[in-house]
Amino acid sequence: MKKFINDADRLLHDALKGVASVHSNIVEVQFSPTFVSRKQRPSEKKVVLISGGGSGHEPLHVGFVGHGMLDAACPGQVFTSPTPDQMLAAASAVDMGPGVLFIVKNYAGDVMNFQMASEMMDCPNATVLVTDDVAVEGSTHTTGRRGVAGALIVEKLAGAAAEAGADLAQCKAIGDRANQTTASMGVAFTSCTVPAAGRPTFEIEADEMEVGVGIHGEPGRRREKLQRADLIVDELLTAILRDLNPQSGAEVLLHVNGFGGTPLMELYLLFERADVQLRSLGLTPVRSLVGNYTTSLEMAGASLTLTVLDSELKALWDAPVRTSALNW
Amino acid sequence: MKKFINDADRLLHDALKGVASVHSNIVEVQFSPTFVSRKQRPSEKKVVLISGGGSGHEPLHVGFVGHGMLDAACPGQVFTSPTPDQMLAAASAVDMGPGVLFIVKNYAGDVMNFQMASEMMDCPNATVLVTDDVAVEGSTHTTGRRGVAGALIVEKLAGAAAEAGADLAQCKAIGDRANQTTASMGVAFTSCTVPAAGRPTFEIEADEMEVGVGIHGEPGRRREKLQRADLIVDELLTAILRDLNPQSGAEVLLHVNGFGGTPLMELYLLFERADVQLRSLGLTPVRSLVGNYTTSLEMAGASLTLTVLDSELKALWDAPVRTSALNW
Repeated sequence: MKKFINDADRLLHDALKGVASVHSNIVEVQFSPTFVSRKQRPSEKKVVLISGGGSGHEPLHVGFVGHGMLDAACPGQVFTSPTPDQMLAAASAVDMGPGVLFIVKNYAGDVMNFQMASEMMDCPNATVLVTDDVAVEGSTHTTGRRGVAGALIVEKLAGAAAEAGADLAQCKAIGDRANQTTASMGVAFTSCTVPAAGRPTFEIEADEMEVGVGIHGEPGRRREKLQRADLIVDELLTAILRDLNPQSGAEVLLHVNGFGGTPLMELYLLFERADVQLRSLGLTPVRSLVGNYTTSLEMAGASLTLTVLDSELKALWDAPVRTSALNW
Repeated sequence: MKKFINDADRLLHDALKGVASVHSNIVEVQFSPTFVSRKQRPSEKKVVLISGGGSGHEPLHVGFVGHGMLDAACPGQVFTSPTPDQMLAAASAVDMGPGVLFIVKNYAGDVMNFQMASEMMDCPNATVLVTDDVAVEGSTHTTGRRGVAGALIVEKLAGAAAEAGADLAQCKAIGDRANQTTASMGVAFTSCTVPAAGRPTFEIEADEMEVGVGIHGEPGRRREKLQRADLIVDELLTAILRDLNPQSGAEVLLHVNGFGGTPLMELYLLFERADVQLRSLGLTPVRSLVGNYTTSLEMAGASLTLTVLDSELKALWDAPVRTSALNW
């Protein structure tokens, strides 16, 4: 295992100390229990958004804390759910009265722990479950569809709604709608290595790829021989569009997400093919995002995420955001 | 070789088409000859900055085109120098009269081609050579020190000076000073694979790292057994500080750069150690940057870059920048 670490048990702590130092104008980090919250509280009372999940997907979610997006994030150990005490402490620190919205990727541990926190809280709260991965129904540690890069979309859109003064029910409705109109699928060329495990999560041959892989290296639809990038994009888009079934003429947000170990040049190449293909199908990618946002440590591979936009969602996407990973 | 490509010869073209689509509000891309320039010309006449070099280091340099930084970038094929016709076309497209400043990383091919372009131009022009890598004196394709992640620093500081109305000599002086007061060194855990070559640039054992590696996989100071992250940071810092020899009490910019295949968590961990160590030595990292900015395709590894700041350089760093990769 080749990693910059001192001790696998201390990796999260050491990394979060770095986050706190580097982004001290945007976030602050608490330990015992661990959560990351905005440095500056919003000037007006608003619904607060809290997300979280296992670490190893950075910048998700810690990098999305800030104006226009999350109020706090609860990172667990690598690929390990955070615990209810983290969520309770985060909620207690950032709650302003109008309610707490949890945004939770659909993994059994995350769902259970956020639900426990929700039940233990006195303040109004609601949860949006992110289930954008169309690859498989049910997976390792998941009942139903996995939540992957669509979490970023849900957090941005619901975060903008909260910033604009939407109440808890409205924020949840935006989050649910963002999730329903978002679909993702990815492929992996290599496995990542979880530091505490010390060896690759899965084995894969030098000429193979995992089509429909999960962001923890969960199996996808099938293992197959490497293909040209254009064919990979076409297959991912076909699966995504079969799920979303957008109307011809629809405007979409196209997000190409790298899993960590794939160069930016390749992600832009994937975008270009997807953009051309979508336009040929009468869909217009009017907004885009390309980069490593929902990673799987150093896994080589990428996913495509498509969100069907309407004027409301487009305006929410365009609303200002000031986090360490998204900033406009 | 596991990459998202259709044809190694078309990778750069396809990726740049993606860049043009995704960042259409910031840049535009020309082909034959190939260069990337700002979408919007500056409102006032100013010195224009042009950089370039082999591709495969993205977001460098293409991602640094925009307000407050570069006016144009000339990408060559992967790890291959761009040609003088690209530089001449870029200069012709963006020149506003007060002069053209080339920012060139010190590799023989880049230096020769930018020099040829410089000699063929009618307009006032000057060149800043970036030589921040303290690992070795002379390397594969390099006489003297290599230019690595310090290019970002030089481009940001000289770019801010140009935006503020500095003349050509002043912009060159800022760029030269930024280079002189900046030093970098990195380590690699794995090799990258150049698409046209199809196999790793170098072989390395599972328990080894290359200390002082170049951003094309050039040899560093030595190959040694993997070490704890803290010890790696300490060794890199020692080499950098020996070169810069900053006064106690100095303010510094600390940049942790990932080479592409190292997770963000690990980069933050490296930052934290470096930050603590610098403070213990009486140096204060008052500005910071952590992420994959000067990459070597999918190489796993990272570099540290330190710039000694004075009030002028600090203000230039803080000046607004609006590019696809840096935005504040």
